[in-house]
Amino acid sequence: MRDFVTINEVGPRDGLQSQGKTLDVNQRLQLIQALLDCGIRSIEAGSFVSPRAVPQMAGTGELFGQLPQRGEIAYSALVPNLRGYELAREAGVRSVAVVLSATETMNQRNVNMSLERTTEVCAELMQRARADGLEGRAYVAVAFECPFEGATPPAVVESLSRRLFEAGARKVIVADTIGAANPASVRRVLERLSDLDAVQLSCHFHDTRGMALANVLASLEHGVREFDSSIGGLGGCPFSPGATGNLATEDLALMLGAMGLDTGLDVFALCDAVQVAQVLTGTPLGGHSHRWLQRESAKRREVQHA
Amino acid sequence: MRDFVTINEVGPRDGLQSQGKTLDVNQRLQLIQALLDCGIRSIEAGSFVSPRAVPQMAGTGELFGQLPQRGEIAYSALVPNLRGYELAREAGVRSVAVVLSATETMNQRNVNMSLERTTEVCAELMQRARADGLEGRAYVAVAFECPFEGATPPAVVESLSRRLFEAGARKVIVADTIGAANPASVRRVLERLSDLDAVQLSCHFHDTRGMALANVLASLEHGVREFDSSIGGLGGCPFSPGATGNLATEDLALMLGAMGLDTGLDVFALCDAVQVAQVLTGTPLGGHSHRWLQRESAKRREVQHA
Repeated sequence: MRDFVTINEVGPRDGLQSQGKTLDVNQRLQLIQALLDCGIRSIEAGSFVSPRAVPQMAGTGELFGQLPQRGEIAYSALVPNLRGYELAREAGVRSVAVVLSATETMNQRNVNMSLERTTEVCAELMQRARADGLEGRAYVAVAFECPFEGATPPAVVESLSRRLFEAGARKVIVADTIGAANPASVRRVLERLSDLDAVQLSCHFHDTRGMALANVLASLEHGVREFDSSIGGLGGCPFSPGATGNLATEDLALMLGAMGLDTGLDVFALCDAVQVAQVLTGTPLGGHSHRWLQRESAKRREVQHA
Repeated sequence: MRDFVTINEVGPRDGLQSQGKTLDVNQRLQLIQALLDCGIRSIEAGSFVSPRAVPQMAGTGELFGQLPQRGEIAYSALVPNLRGYELAREAGVRSVAVVLSATETMNQRNVNMSLERTTEVCAELMQRARADGLEGRAYVAVAFECPFEGATPPAVVESLSRRLFEAGARKVIVADTIGAANPASVRRVLERLSDLDAVQLSCHFHDTRGMALANVLASLEHGVREFDSSIGGLGGCPFSPGATGNLATEDLALMLGAMGLDTGLDVFALCDAVQVAQVLTGTPLGGHSHRWLQRESAKRREVQHA
């Protein structure tokens, strides 16, 4: 049996929330359906934030009420605070994610709270999730470098991660919010978490400096078996100067598949999902492998129709 | 002392030979000067092929006569046959490279000779180079996958590499001519050559499927300390359907530098060389990190001028 690697698609949340164009709930459902059609079974579908702060995520409760429900699909939602958590619970969300930036300044800029206060809020939400029988997912953002404070000490990432696990997080997602990680810095952080089970860790890379897949490879070597990615590279972080696209789902799926790992995804079908995301957002999308995948997909269609 | 990794720039040969626009000798010298200005000290400067077959490389003898000569700069030239080898020697070339494709069909399509015959020709040229006191460099092309024959058996790459070393090659460059390698296939090939010294091996990756840097990382783990790359990703292989850009020099230098390896290159100066290559070739260029590098270079200039 081939080793399974989970690809958690974040386009519908991380991707859409930084777009100039706001999609309505039906359009967001269309995007999610296109992703499901490629075999994606883990999706960050939205966030329960103030619609004034992030209008792109308005109606996430309504969205969750209409998501295609099959046993094997894991949807999660981001919750910034207790209010968001309660809304998510009311909407029937089974998996909630919190974001804790690893530096003081990033928390101040992102959520207007201190690192200590944000840690408390996130820990409390993870505790609640555990008590309520929900899956708690915790992002440790700017885990490698902060746009304001420079290199993030791996010891800080480690201690924040352990605090979140103790509070009740089922998974910590080590996040390179600004695309500044490199394989050496990835190793330095993951070495400190090497006692954890593979199922407890995930990595989130941005491709700003073209190193996302190399960072994935370094993480795989440290036993990580879950990664975030975004269809066509959709997104970025609106609060981080210099952050550009997320790692593209098709690039990730192509490399993992080529290496003999099982992702459950059809990489050629992902071309269609990129197309759907492009039409819906009005943004040109596509990872590094996009041109090659398009050409190969076209060839395969010709063969099928011949 | 930091580990040194040699970046061998192939833009002036591999890059230019696939361009629609043919540069004259002066323009090629301009490109090479721009590369030297970034700290590049290893350059594949041209090839001694028939100007009828590859007009982009006409005048390589004249070019070599005018190359900036400093002790620490290593220029090499591609030679397809004995005639090319003699021309290279007459032009004062100190390092000659041959290309041996690892599959029967690729040799037939590329040089209209059998695999066995091409192997003999390349071995003879490496023998001559050794006898004449020149550095012999031998490419094993389509070392991972052939566009005509599919996956290349690692055992074949190993035996061809060893034959070339025995003949006199100082270095074998394992080449992913069509950008089809992945970190797992890279490991399978390099494992077979693990008894060699680091100085005997180099890798050449194309970025067609976005995996070039991940492949570099896998190679580094196998002790490889030299890589080919092309400024701005200039080039491809005119004889290989599906091959697009070479790994961009700036992407490679950025990752190696971020990992704490010494390349001797100024990654921000590479932005200027990309610009020179763009203007000369009339082709839009730039690796995955291009936008980020441009933004950072501009910021640094502002600081310098403030």
